[in-house]
Amino acid sequence: MNSLNQQSEKDVVDARLDLDRQRRCGFPEVIFSLGKTPEQVARIISELAQRGDIVLATLASPEHFAATVKQVPDAIYNEEARLIIVKRGEAVTYDPDTDGAGHVIVATGGTADFSIAEEAAITAELHGARVTRLYDIGVAGVHRALEHTDTLQSARVIIAVAGMEGALPILMAGLVKVPVIAVPTSIGYGANFEGVAPLLTMLNSCSGGISVVNINNGFGAAVIATRINAPAWLEE
Amino acid sequence: MNSLNQQSEKDVVDARLDLDRQRRCGFPEVIFSLGKTPEQVARIISELAQRGDIVLATLASPEHFAATVKQVPDAIYNEEARLIIVKRGEAVTYDPDTDGAGHVIVATGGTADFSIAEEAAITAELHGARVTRLYDIGVAGVHRALEHTDTLQSARVIIAVAGMEGALPILMAGLVKVPVIAVPTSIGYGANFEGVAPLLTMLNSCSGGISVVNINNGFGAAVIATRINAPAWLEE
Amino acid sequence: MNSLNQQSEKDVVDARLDLDRQRRCGFPEVIFSLGKTPEQVARIISELAQRGDIVLATLASPEHFAATVKQVPDAIYNEEARLIIVKRGEAVTYDPDTDGAGHVIVATGGTADFSIAEEAAITAELHGARVTRLYDIGVAGVHRALEHTDTLQSARVIIAVAGMEGALPILMAGLVKVPVIAVPTSIGYGANFEGVAPLLTMLNSCSGGISVVNINNGFGAAVIATRINAPAWLEE
Amino acid sequence: MNSLNQQSEKDVVDARLDLDRQRRCGFPEVIFSLGKTPEQVARIISELAQRGDIVLATLASPEHFAATVKQVPDAIYNEEARLIIVKRGEAVTYDPDTDGAGHVIVATGGTADFSIAEEAAITAELHGARVTRLYDIGVAGVHRALEHTDTLQSARVIIAVAGMEGALPILMAGLVKVPVIAVPTSIGYGANFEGVAPLLTMLNSCSGGISVVNINNGFGAAVIATRINAPAWLEE
Amino acid sequence: MNSLNQQSEKDVVDARLDLDRQRRCGFPEVIFSLGKTPEQVARIISELAQRGDIVLATLASPEHFAATVKQVPDAIYNEEARLIIVKRGEAVTYDPDTDGAGHVIVATGGTADFSIAEEAAITAELHGARVTRLYDIGVAGVHRALEHTDTLQSARVIIAVAGMEGALPILMAGLVKVPVIAVPTSIGYGANFEGVAPLLTMLNSCSGGISVVNINNGFGAAVIATRINAPAWLEE
Amino acid sequence: MNSLNQQSEKDVVDARLDLDRQRRCGFPEVIFSLGKTPEQVARIISELAQRGDIVLATLASPEHFAATVKQVPDAIYNEEARLIIVKRGEAVTYDPDTDGAGHVIVATGGTADFSIAEEAAITAELHGARVTRLYDIGVAGVHRALEHTDTLQSARVIIAVAGMEGALPILMAGLVKVPVIAVPTSIGYGANFEGVAPLLTMLNSCSGGISVVNINNGFGAAVIATRINAPAWLEE
Amino acid sequence: MNSLNQQSEKDVVDARLDLDRQRRCGFPEVIFSLGKTPEQVARIISELAQRGDIVLATLASPEHFAATVKQVPDAIYNEEARLIIVKRGEAVTYDPDTDGAGHVIVATGGTADFSIAEEAAITAELHGARVTRLYDIGVAGVHRALEHTDTLQSARVIIAVAGMEGALPILMAGLVKVPVIAVPTSIGYGANFEGVAPLLTMLNSCSGGISVVNINNGFGAAVIATRINAPAWLEE
Amino acid sequence: MNSLNQQSEKDVVDARLDLDRQRRCGFPEVIFSLGKTPEQVARIISELAQRGDIVLATLASPEHFAATVKQVPDAIYNEEARLIIVKRGEAVTYDPDTDGAGHVIVATGGTADFSIAEEAAITAELHGARVTRLYDIGVAGVHRALEHTDTLQSARVIIAVAGMEGALPILMAGLVKVPVIAVPTSIGYGANFEGVAPLLTMLNSCSGGISVVNINNGFGAAVIATRINAPAWLEE
Repeated sequence: MNSLNQQSEKDVVDARLDLDRQRRCGFPEVIFSLGKTPEQVARIISELAQRGDIVLATLASPEHFAATVKQVPDAIYNEEARLIIVKRGEAVTYDPDTDGAGHVIVATGGTADFSIAEEAAITAELHGARVTRLYDIGVAGVHRALEHTDTLQSARVIIAVAGMEGALPILMAGLVKVPVIAVPTSIGYGANFEGVAPLLTMLNSCSGGISVVNINNGFGAAVIATRINAPAWLEE
Repeated sequence: MNSLNQQSEKDVVDARLDLDRQRRCGFPEVIFSLGKTPEQVARIISELAQRGDIVLATLASPEHFAATVKQVPDAIYNEEARLIIVKRGEAVTYDPDTDGAGHVIVATGGTADFSIAEEAAITAELHGARVTRLYDIGVAGVHRALEHTDTLQSARVIIAVAGMEGALPILMAGLVKVPVIAVPTSIGYGANFEGVAPLLTMLNSCSGGISVVNINNGFGAAVIATRINAPAWLEE
Repeated sequence: MNSLNQQSEKDVVDARLDLDRQRRCGFPEVIFSLGKTPEQVARIISELAQRGDIVLATLASPEHFAATVKQVPDAIYNEEARLIIVKRGEAVTYDPDTDGAGHVIVATGGTADFSIAEEAAITAELHGARVTRLYDIGVAGVHRALEHTDTLQSARVIIAVAGMEGALPILMAGLVKVPVIAVPTSIGYGANFEGVAPLLTMLNSCSGGISVVNINNGFGAAVIATRINAPAWLEE
Repeated sequence: MNSLNQQSEKDVVDARLDLDRQRRCGFPEVIFSLGKTPEQVARIISELAQRGDIVLATLASPEHFAATVKQVPDAIYNEEARLIIVKRGEAVTYDPDTDGAGHVIVATGGTADFSIAEEAAITAELHGARVTRLYDIGVAGVHRALEHTDTLQSARVIIAVAGMEGALPILMAGLVKVPVIAVPTSIGYGANFEGVAPLLTMLNSCSGGISVVNINNGFGAAVIATRINAPAWLEE
Repeated sequence: MNSLNQQSEKDVVDARLDLDRQRRCGFPEVIFSLGKTPEQVARIISELAQRGDIVLATLASPEHFAATVKQVPDAIYNEEARLIIVKRGEAVTYDPDTDGAGHVIVATGGTADFSIAEEAAITAELHGARVTRLYDIGVAGVHRALEHTDTLQSARVIIAVAGMEGALPILMAGLVKVPVIAVPTSIGYGANFEGVAPLLTMLNSCSGGISVVNINNGFGAAVIATRINAPAWLEE
Repeated sequence: MNSLNQQSEKDVVDARLDLDRQRRCGFPEVIFSLGKTPEQVARIISELAQRGDIVLATLASPEHFAATVKQVPDAIYNEEARLIIVKRGEAVTYDPDTDGAGHVIVATGGTADFSIAEEAAITAELHGARVTRLYDIGVAGVHRALEHTDTLQSARVIIAVAGMEGALPILMAGLVKVPVIAVPTSIGYGANFEGVAPLLTMLNSCSGGISVVNINNGFGAAVIATRINAPAWLEE
Repeated sequence: MNSLNQQSEKDVVDARLDLDRQRRCGFPEVIFSLGKTPEQVARIISELAQRGDIVLATLASPEHFAATVKQVPDAIYNEEARLIIVKRGEAVTYDPDTDGAGHVIVATGGTADFSIAEEAAITAELHGARVTRLYDIGVAGVHRALEHTDTLQSARVIIAVAGMEGALPILMAGLVKVPVIAVPTSIGYGANFEGVAPLLTMLNSCSGGISVVNINNGFGAAVIATRINAPAWLEE
Repeated sequence: MNSLNQQSEKDVVDARLDLDRQRRCGFPEVIFSLGKTPEQVARIISELAQRGDIVLATLASPEHFAATVKQVPDAIYNEEARLIIVKRGEAVTYDPDTDGAGHVIVATGGTADFSIAEEAAITAELHGARVTRLYDIGVAGVHRALEHTDTLQSARVIIAVAGMEGALPILMAGLVKVPVIAVPTSIGYGANFEGVAPLLTMLNSCSGGISVVNINNGFGAAVIATRINAPAWLEE
């Protein structure tokens, strides 16, 4: 039966590295941690960190980080955003004064969506974007959103994160002329159906200018926002 | 085989009349027209009109009305709201000056939901409610909704009708202290799923004070609004 | 990488407080505990308790309460209703003799829905409502519901809580002239789909006068019932 | 290309006859008309009528009957129940005086479900059952159902047909000790989802003794009711 | 705040007892354990056991039983069927020789559905039914089902329990003239959707004579089977 | 505005031809007619017929054929299978005597699925397969399926077409060692959900050896069966 | 009853105009034709054309256009894209030589999605975008997509329109660094569920950089693409 | 109450063995471990190992294996594929040099699907198939898939395993002429719905030649692939 094991673990990890590299398209090295063991994540981060300047692991648990930091001591962990980050040397990063590109707003109506919003905000920052967080804007208190109208209109692109009924991006798209990337979250209960309700709300918006990513996909929203915002280092 | 037909049509209609009467609970005689032939609707209206002051048939087609008006010449038809109405003698009705009860607002974000909104508004009026129509308030243009804040806050109850993403009642419930009855409509396409999207939006509202009726059920919303508004003739 | 953490936790909590205040619309301070850590809930309750007379946290676990009571010693906990309550000084509350407003009935068919029913009943009481609990009325034993007809007809509004097939509000709406707020619960199994079955039952009622809130949303039903019942302190 | 047609139509019809005979299991010859042309239905009925005493075609349109009656002049048609019936000579049938078996109640809450209820009632009668129709019992008017308690308790089996929210069988199963066959219908709109709402209601009944058939399957309910009621001619 | 607790626990349990008694309709006392604490279940069983001869608790966990047996020492537990049973004195029970009624077959295709099948079989036995278990019949091995044709045809009613694709009752209904009660189970994975796949299979059967109960509802199937089989003690 | 029309219709058709050619992978030229006008289908068939020996248009209406036969007089039409076929010169085709490959069985339980079964059978024949039709095998009459056991076991691959509950392929896979391609059809009503019920049945089969294609996709099943059966001309 | 009609049609249309104007946010005047009568659409276009330079009506039928052209003779109609267009005087439009902004690619895999693709392409052109159509790229023939790699990489944003399984945008996002707006269409059958299948495919993309709009929402995709592409006249 | 236990455990296990044997149809003895206790699985494997040469238990946990290896010391366990394997004496197995049959490719786009892919690959090998693993092919990096075109075209059948959006088999079917068995996996989040998204993608493929098995059913795909590949020992 030994022949059944001839797919060595090393081959598998190599395959993983190749695969992850394939996915780049102008992006740092990214590992999707879900369904991988702490050891697997640690090993892949370690390998990638030797080849690139920025490595990012999404949906990472504290266990993933504990295994990683043993092998990569300068890895840092943002628990709320569930991100493991390795960032080195000449990595192009956010410079609030000299970067000529626009800025990205990450907005959310309530604190329950904080985790996904941070995943988006930090991912965007890692790609060189200037990010403004507006975490206290909700449809239930519409006056507060209106107070931020000037800020909202100054962005190059808005990431609007919302669970429950998901109306926040609808409200925003009525206030601005820039693209709004809507991120439904699974925060809610009952007929929320783990994010299906806000997903449908966002897809059916009667306001124009909204496109949608998968439920809880803060990372994906940041990738798109970065591609819209087009920082210089993407152009090379 | 004759015994198979011994359930005479007359028996069936009588049963219908009995049934419809059962459903009253303080309401005019109401006929749900869907799935009934024009002749059946005409016959039931004709019988009911001999016993009561107000008769209302919902979801009525022009064919339903054509058959009805032959038997009940004073029946009138509102095509947009799909209502056939018979209203006679001492029927208690809306008196804008002397009726002490509160008033009911029927709001909708776009003209596409006009038909359901009118079904709600006319039904409420037939029960003696003062009704204010606000048909130009939409989440996409939030400033316009805010202009009506005073009007909205003066109501005893608000019926908010919305298709597409259904965010209108969310916005409103953040502006008032009175109950909001939300009516999702099937206006939309694609992932709207014939009204499921706004239904879910409304059920998941992060604003408090919203309860929901079935998709397109303008009539039902008006029944509830009337019970909340409690005009005098309901008390007897 | 430090700049990634510049959104200090204090800012976040402040935002939360602001947000929660936005949501009031005539209501005590309310915290939705789901997805918040015990420390976060404790800190928000503590801050809110310094500003208002009544603070309510819904969907609170024993862990949430343990953290809270350390900071707010007069906080009390109702485990079955999953509510943390802080109630002080001049808080307007229920006075069975002198309050002129109507009373609210909270009804449920079985003991399995007790938790949601208590969430509704206590929330309504905290807003000054007189509440009558009818927890032994079920469609399976219809005679028992009929025995309570007089009580049901004396209410200003009825909250009907039901899992399984969810028929209880249908039965009740046929007996009374007042609004019925239907609360589907996730009690059931198989084709119940965690509350979807009773939700659909309630939305499709052939009895008039029923509106529906989200699955397990006893709190929301109480907010609406209070707005319908309109105790004096809401009017100021 | 001729070989592609070598499956002659005669072979197909023969196959159909064989198939339909297979399905009997103690039942008359039955044709499911949906998706068959008028000519196909007419030809199959004609063949079957030469071999058996009773032939029944369900879901038959007026066009199906028009084609059939040309070939089988003694065929009769019940338009509301959408049944074509051929009944001859010594066919065992219902004799209200001498048949020792129990009787079957077909109940429905409203007239909208009349068509499916008749499909069930006539099918049961064709199998020799005594059938009592109770077409005016609805959950919205529960007192009326209670008036029929004695009749309901005298049955051997009850077929309860209901659209909208589908609560009728729940109510009935609480009043009797005999099996209740629940038939959801597609009568309704919006969140009824063409019969899914009453189907789920019936499957989740908190009353015992209810089993369910497919949406609109009045025929199937009658087959089961007959097998429960067990008229003598089934025993041979 | 004390008034919030004035619904004493004793009142609640009394309500429960009343409710459970309501549900009888010719059945032993039954407790639905899901969502109740071990102490609650134990207390209700203890009270009911003082009033009746047979008490049955469904969906009971070992913890439920551990709490119960302390208060009711003669309670027994069937772990696979998740039933707690108290059976005393003159309880009418199964006598294989003298009971004139028919017998009930409980069939299942695989061992994975054993738990639900035993829930059905034991429940039926507790109501006096003779039960034959056929647990090795599956559609995948159709010859084996055919070997049991004589046994199947001798039953008064068949309970067919099936997960996965749920085809077993379809096969059986083609072999017999008696009613088949189909019980879908949640055994399966992927597109089984926790029992939805076999539920739909059973509702759409092209074989006649099948009615369906909720997913995993072995208890409910036995109640119906008993009502069909009609043992003498149900007739009193 | 003229520039808006600069995508000439000719370009579009050329694109279509290119696209359709892309899809071949060893297959005749195939046109998917749904959503194309009769003129578009006729034009594409005409172009393709000049380049290849066999052209096949699926889901073709009589109108599609009427337009086609004007341009391609030797086109033939099979209305029940909704196929337009052009077959010329040296086209490799079925020779019952000399073709060494295995044969393909197309089986269906009832006549309602005849159309989809013919689409599969004719498509397979056009690719050189010997096809045996078994259109009278149903789970409701299992003995009849068993009579064909020898035939079934002689096939290289079986296409099992079934609507309603879709159990036919389950039964067959228990009788043979060859692959079974299951084709769910939309024949049924109510909880059939236009083919979802048989689709789920087939995906959840407890018999091994079944794979599934889209609802009503008789054409696709034939493509796979041909690839399994591997007639010589595919090997070149 | 006259008071029921006091909401004059003029008021309604005015409301409509106001509403539609609200929705602009930097866009031409747009009318969503679905659910409006030809007369209503004609009247609104006529009014808007007097105030603005470009008027666009989406989802317009030939009947809508026939009514419109009587009142607005210079209106033009694109039947395949279902657009009515009025374009006048100084309207900013596409100038292939001097416009400095990037260009927009509209890609589709098959001709079946041509209508939605044209809706997107023409809408984008009306906003001043240079549009390149790639209508012959499909996942089934991946080599062809690869031939266009250079063109794809030259775009500022890509709109990828796909029905059936919806894989086209997945393939594209792997080839480029710019944002991909994915438009699922309802082209397909069976388990396509009128566009749900491609919608889910697109939301779950393992390629980064994809965001999604509602099923068939070519117009919405163009609005977003325009906001990303940022033509000069949007900046004012 | 003892009679309730008369179904001895031994009878049950015997039934299980019979059942599992029924399922063979040319396959090794297979046990579906899900929902069985470690002791039950161990006992069944032990019995089967005395009768056959190869025994395979799918979806086996480490606990299942720990219990098994005590009774069957030569049992081996593949944790990633969740398989327990017993393989003895003359078992026909894979011989890379002399086996004349074709070979089977198991492909997957990412490492997340590794577990299901191994379940398929090992199962196929146990049936004598030569298996080539291609675990680094993904739609996001299409060039890599193209590099393997020659290998892909050399297979007799391809098993394509994919979660997330599930586009891998679509891409492959466009490159080869052999059947592609598509296996959706539950790897993903949000609108993946535990594998429904890739399942729908695969069923709706616009590439021909794809059939689908249940979500995560690597075992089932291997059974079909083996039946297509037809190793000699299946022919006996």
